[in-house]
Amino acid sequence: MRVYLDNAMSAPILKEVRETMLPCLQEVSGNPSAFHDWGDAARETIEQAREQVAMLIGADTEEIILTGSGTEANNSAVKGLALARWSKGKHIVVSAIEHFSVLQSARSLEKMGFELSLVPVDSHGIVDPDEVRRAVRKDTVLVSIMHANTEVGTIEPMAEIARITREHGIPLHTDAVATAGTIPVDVKALGVDALSLSANQFYGPHGVGALWVRKGVRIMPLLDGGTQEGGRRAGTENVAGIAGMGKAAQLAREAMQDRMAHLLPIRDRLLTGLPAAIGHVEVSGHPVQRLPGNASFLVEFIEGESMLMMLNMKGVAVSSGSSCMSRALKASHVLLAMGVPHEKAQGSLLLTAGIDNRLQEADYVVEVLPPIVDRLRQMSPLYAKFEKAK
Amino acid sequence: MRVYLDNAMSAPILKEVRETMLPCLQEVSGNPSAFHDWGDAARETIEQAREQVAMLIGADTEEIILTGSGTEANNSAVKGLALARWSKGKHIVVSAIEHFSVLQSARSLEKMGFELSLVPVDSHGIVDPDEVRRAVRKDTVLVSIMHANTEVGTIEPMAEIARITREHGIPLHTDAVATAGTIPVDVKALGVDALSLSANQFYGPHGVGALWVRKGVRIMPLLDGGTQEGGRRAGTENVAGIAGMGKAAQLAREAMQDRMAHLLPIRDRLLTGLPAAIGHVEVSGHPVQRLPGNASFLVEFIEGESMLMMLNMKGVAVSSGSSCMSRALKASHVLLAMGVPHEKAQGSLLLTAGIDNRLQEADYVVEVLPPIVDRLRQMSPLYAKFEKAK
Repeated sequence: MRVYLDNAMSAPILKEVRETMLPCLQEVSGNPSAFHDWGDAARETIEQAREQVAMLIGADTEEIILTGSGTEANNSAVKGLALARWSKGKHIVVSAIEHFSVLQSARSLEKMGFELSLVPVDSHGIVDPDEVRRAVRKDTVLVSIMHANTEVGTIEPMAEIARITREHGIPLHTDAVATAGTIPVDVKALGVDALSLSANQFYGPHGVGALWVRKGVRIMPLLDGGTQEGGRRAGTENVAGIAGMGKAAQLAREAMQDRMAHLLPIRDRLLTGLPAAIGHVEVSGHPVQRLPGNASFLVEFIEGESMLMMLNMKGVAVSSGSSCMSRALKASHVLLAMGVPHEKAQGSLLLTAGIDNRLQEADYVVEVLPPIVDRLRQMSPLYAKFEKAK
Repeated sequence: MRVYLDNAMSAPILKEVRETMLPCLQEVSGNPSAFHDWGDAARETIEQAREQVAMLIGADTEEIILTGSGTEANNSAVKGLALARWSKGKHIVVSAIEHFSVLQSARSLEKMGFELSLVPVDSHGIVDPDEVRRAVRKDTVLVSIMHANTEVGTIEPMAEIARITREHGIPLHTDAVATAGTIPVDVKALGVDALSLSANQFYGPHGVGALWVRKGVRIMPLLDGGTQEGGRRAGTENVAGIAGMGKAAQLAREAMQDRMAHLLPIRDRLLTGLPAAIGHVEVSGHPVQRLPGNASFLVEFIEGESMLMMLNMKGVAVSSGSSCMSRALKASHVLLAMGVPHEKAQGSLLLTAGIDNRLQEADYVVEVLPPIVDRLRQMSPLYAKFEKAK
């Protein structure tokens, strides 16, 4: 059996998405900046995709900036919003569990003279809006809090956070890479001023994302150059990728309720099945405010990496924490911020279900993982120590 | 007849390139950061493409940073090289005819406190190396001169310029978007320290490019986040696009001499044919140091835009100056820097041949353009004035 439960890392591209992309990879795809028929077709394709993305998040079409990835959208948002307000103040606020594309962008701003406040989270990974209230100051020019965390699945109380930033007149960005296209996202309901998303998270292609910026909110471009995207993001457009993102956005919007209904039982089978089948395993993240495909765990007395490799030998693909840092072999900053001890954080296990998964696949994992964990624990000096202490 | 002579704006994607990309758009393409078989395949695909790109420009594989476009590569180079040397000095030097992705990046650095010197060009668009020597100072931390200008086709004396920057120990970046994959480019022969390229310029896909940075040269990442590309460019990789760029690079290297031999007669037919068929038309750019597919002209007493639209009605796709700014309807900064008067610069006409073009297509343009120019001149107050003055 081959079981792919690493959809947050990389999701399959839908057939309809691929079919939308293919004509743009044939012959001359055209450059939307051109003054001839070839350019017209490309321009229409892009504007249609922009509208599809806008509709997915309840935004106005002209507020969408097409980017080359979710990471680029996050970099553009954090750096671009802060640098556009450079003269007003040099303090920014982000949560301690942000994706590295937000966190390291904030660190880069620190090197440029900005002051950074990290908002803590509770043991479920929830940002307390009151902590945001305490963190903001007169010179705060940006707050960036993710909509949901991919690693532990926790969904943040954005609307409450937005009420606070609005009171203070501070722009609020949210990294919605984990939520846009997966759960309902409406920029007006969220009350944010900028929002990042990534196409592959909703079965679109890699290498394309979008940044929504509310009309009237100033932003400095990250990519300088031509006049594409209203001067907010230069570079000849990846027409095929953009068309694919648009189609994926349309499909995600239409099928969202069905997809959630499909994911939840798979997720819940894992969330209840694995701790029942293996001792010293606990669910990480929030029990209720949780992404529909996310099943994340802490497996004690074990290193996540070896678990992944042994699962791979059984045909099962999963992750251990953040995709972008997985190969850096560090304990997840998200788990540490949630108060998980360093040793325990090493045993992080992340399964993310997608629309192609079936319930039987969850059962298969619940079946094959316990003997793997047993075997690894037999070799673990930590486990030996624990057993001896009993 | 449909004649596409706008290859610098957007080139057709080769069949072999498309076929290399398609498997990466099927099912799960995998994330190279993953710890399982799906990730392994993606990782191998990317490393092969990196090697193919490295071979195209005579670089070491690990020196290649994969990016989302040529524009991103240029932004990364200019901002990343300058900001990494922020403490050493705040002076940068670029030529007056750079692509906007270099020029506007330099302008952004200016806003951050850098001082910018623009090196002039002669009437053929050539940068005099002695002007670079005069421009550099003790606190110069970056020189960026393009390898060739897409708009007028002029190829710059990079090796001579590199000799000067090396003498002064200043990093030299070159925007080789117009040359890499089109004419022989060897980073060692050029003597530069960093080089940008774009896949579509050599019949690869849009939305992917690369930045080469010589080993040991420090650069600050433009895209912060995960540990991809050795921490120099974050973001989940666009595996399909990267695979396509790799294949396109391999094909470009193998077919380079044949392609140049194919392009030159088409270019030369245009360069000699149009001025012979129409009065008051001159070739812009250098007569010899010129890109093999570039035929650029100044058509007096006419606005480029109307010429483009009438050519489009005859099935001919061409450009008027820089692709990224074409819709901004401004006179080209390149032509102005070459000393072309503002009025004359409005009549800029750019035809860029690609490997799919045939000599007959050049003949067709030489046939259909003269009556178009005649008609437009009949309506031109400038032409009336000129005729009257005769």
